[in-house]
Amino acid sequence: MKILGIDPGIAITGFGILQLNEAGDPELVRYGVIDSTAVRETSSRLVFLFDALQELLVTGKPDYCALEQLYFSKNITTGMRVSEARGVIELCMAKNNVPVGEYTPNEVKQSVTSYGNAAKKQVQEMVKVMLAMESIPKPDDAADALAIALCHISHLRYERKISEVEA
Amino acid sequence: MKILGIDPGIAITGFGILQLNEAGDPELVRYGVIDSTAVRETSSRLVFLFDALQELLVTGKPDYCALEQLYFSKNITTGMRVSEARGVIELCMAKNNVPVGEYTPNEVKQSVTSYGNAAKKQVQEMVKVMLAMESIPKPDDAADALAIALCHISHLRYERKISEVEA
Repeated sequence: MKILGIDPGIAITGFGILQLNEAGDPELVRYGVIDSTAVRETSSRLVFLFDALQELLVTGKPDYCALEQLYFSKNITTGMRVSEARGVIELCMAKNNVPVGEYTPNEVKQSVTSYGNAAKKQVQEMVKVMLAMESIPKPDDAADALAIALCHISHLRYERKISEVEA
Repeated sequence: MKILGIDPGIAITGFGILQLNEAGDPELVRYGVIDSTAVRETSSRLVFLFDALQELLVTGKPDYCALEQLYFSKNITTGMRVSEARGVIELCMAKNNVPVGEYTPNEVKQSVTSYGNAAKKQVQEMVKVMLAMESIPKPDDAADALAIALCHISHLRYERKISEVEA
């Protein structure tokens, strides 16, 4: 089973693909960013993002997508634009029948470090350890996307546990 | 020249297509709503919206799209979701090479009624008069979309006027 984590942005969208091995542990497949900073217009950036995601789905074949949910504490205008990117990501996943799970930044931190207010650096260190990487994944957007994918995996595990209790 | 006005929504998106006749006056082509209330999931609603817009572009062949810009005074969660719909609308227009103009609700009111704080009813009455309709267009989302299209037309006129002064 493969999980695609996405950290949506207006110009730079981080992504990370993890695979669950037979022991049920996550292994790193690939990660990186979709960088549309060279594209000037918002609408053209959305096309760039959609087309890049489409390609990622064809080559990476994920079974699930985990997407960071927005919180609007910083800047409403930026948040609006990021939501537009999120809409395009959701559209692309739905058109390709990839189910989407949404997690807030705090849920991701809680899941990866067991602490909802963990610093960015702590989260990145945990991602490195959990995926047996030699160094912290770069850039930050890609590291965030891997953390989101890890969060989704622990949620899938939790859901499985619940259904075992009920059986 | 044809203008497609859009009032984006999570469940109901209003649209209106106007055509400029040879005298440069707007004539009503068609209007209505894209209603995805029967679809439960947000991501499926975005697919519904994208596909319906795609069809509207093929049948209506607009040269421009005018889109209502969001303001976040009421509800941030709703605003986030409407922004996702806006992202899908912008994507669809960009993929079909239809340029998009964005207008705030106040710009639309100002343009149609000469008064930025006009009541909804006043705007709707002006739309009816300007398009020589027998009654106020229904539902509200469709009326709003027609007002946005009218706003875009007056902006196109203004831009032309400016360039005449400069010539």
